[in-house]
Amino acid sequence: MRFAVLAADTTLFTIRDGRLSVRLISVNRPPFYKNVWGLPGGLLHPKETADDAALRHLKEKANVALLHVYAEQLYTFSDPNRDPRGRVVAVAYLALVPWNALTPEERGDTADVKWSPIEHTKNLAYDHDTILSVALMRLRSRIRYTTLIAKLMPDEFTLTELEKAYESILKAALDKRNFRKKILKLKIVKKRPYKRTGKRSRPAQLYEFASPSVKEIEML
Amino acid sequence: MRFAVLAADTTLFTIRDGRLSVRLISVNRPPFYKNVWGLPGGLLHPKETADDAALRHLKEKANVALLHVYAEQLYTFSDPNRDPRGRVVAVAYLALVPWNALTPEERGDTADVKWSPIEHTKNLAYDHDTILSVALMRLRSRIRYTTLIAKLMPDEFTLTELEKAYESILKAALDKRNFRKKILKLKIVKKRPYKRTGKRSRPAQLYEFASPSVKEIEML
Repeated sequence: MRFAVLAADTTLFTIRDGRLSVRLISVNRPPFYKNVWGLPGGLLHPKETADDAALRHLKEKANVALLHVYAEQLYTFSDPNRDPRGRVVAVAYLALVPWNALTPEERGDTADVKWSPIEHTKNLAYDHDTILSVALMRLRSRIRYTTLIAKLMPDEFTLTELEKAYESILKAALDKRNFRKKILKLKIVKKRPYKRTGKRSRPAQLYEFASPSVKEIEML
Repeated sequence: MRFAVLAADTTLFTIRDGRLSVRLISVNRPPFYKNVWGLPGGLLHPKETADDAALRHLKEKANVALLHVYAEQLYTFSDPNRDPRGRVVAVAYLALVPWNALTPEERGDTADVKWSPIEHTKNLAYDHDTILSVALMRLRSRIRYTTLIAKLMPDEFTLTELEKAYESILKAALDKRNFRKKILKLKIVKKRPYKRTGKRSRPAQLYEFASPSVKEIEML
């Protein structure tokens, strides 16, 4: 059998209440999977690219519109035994969306779809535990040398909020002074023309990303 | 037709005589392709991963043993029209090998296989022009924030040789003093315990990469 079935599966991350979370859908494929969670995805149409299929399944099954979603190809998983139904090769995607860009419906959890904090996400269908861990590794690596984290941040934010976003992904505390110094030196963010004021705290400078596109922090 | 044929295609780069070059094979698939050049690759066996298939075809068709070849997944090309014979999805790989690690046979060009300088490589079979240009973009990007270039360098080299390798890939002249300062500051190379001596030139300090694995130059 020279033929394979092609699927596109997406790991969509957001930061909800300070916790890195992933969008899951309910998978029902008896006798193999009965009411387990998995990553949103599905098969390619005959005339469809993997990129298009990934976004279509995200919209149809994960109930997330695509307006604010950033997606990039992650890796293609071709282990012959990854799907008990036969040879299914999965083109996997890493996708990001800022929490505040989601509508109330997109934020919501139902019996069929939910946002799951990373640390509580396991025993997914197929090889989705593996796909999730590769996506997580890629995200952790890429936020260290690119401005990819911008795709998880609101339009404006304080440096403390940015630091907390890094910490929620890296699962590590960063040195606050050092972090501020590095971020400002890299010139990847710029000041907004006003501060955020609150009753209980000092006014905090707001920032935005200097460029809307994901840039590598280059060494040469 | 829900089924697709899976292929693995590899862009294998080396630096020959100071020029970035890619390994090509002769493609004969009448009536579509007759004696044109293409990237080494081919179909997956039923129980084979894309990674294994890529390396197998590289060995069998491009006449390059795998001992010193570095390979990583590049991108999966799934345009329904990329192959005139039907739906063939290609998992593409970026691979690198140092010229001095190749045997005389592996260095050689024949009627069926050759090393082609990048600037003279076009009109390849299938969508291989596209795959090559994506591989080239990825290589150019990755050598700027990782130590990936190590996989194209001999075990020991002078800083001038390293600079020339960067220049052959980036197609741009670097500032010599600035380059040396940055490379040494990043501590990605370390001195060998001796210099290279020649009749006509001053002894030149030799270096090696500090780590055998590809590392990201991190901003945080």
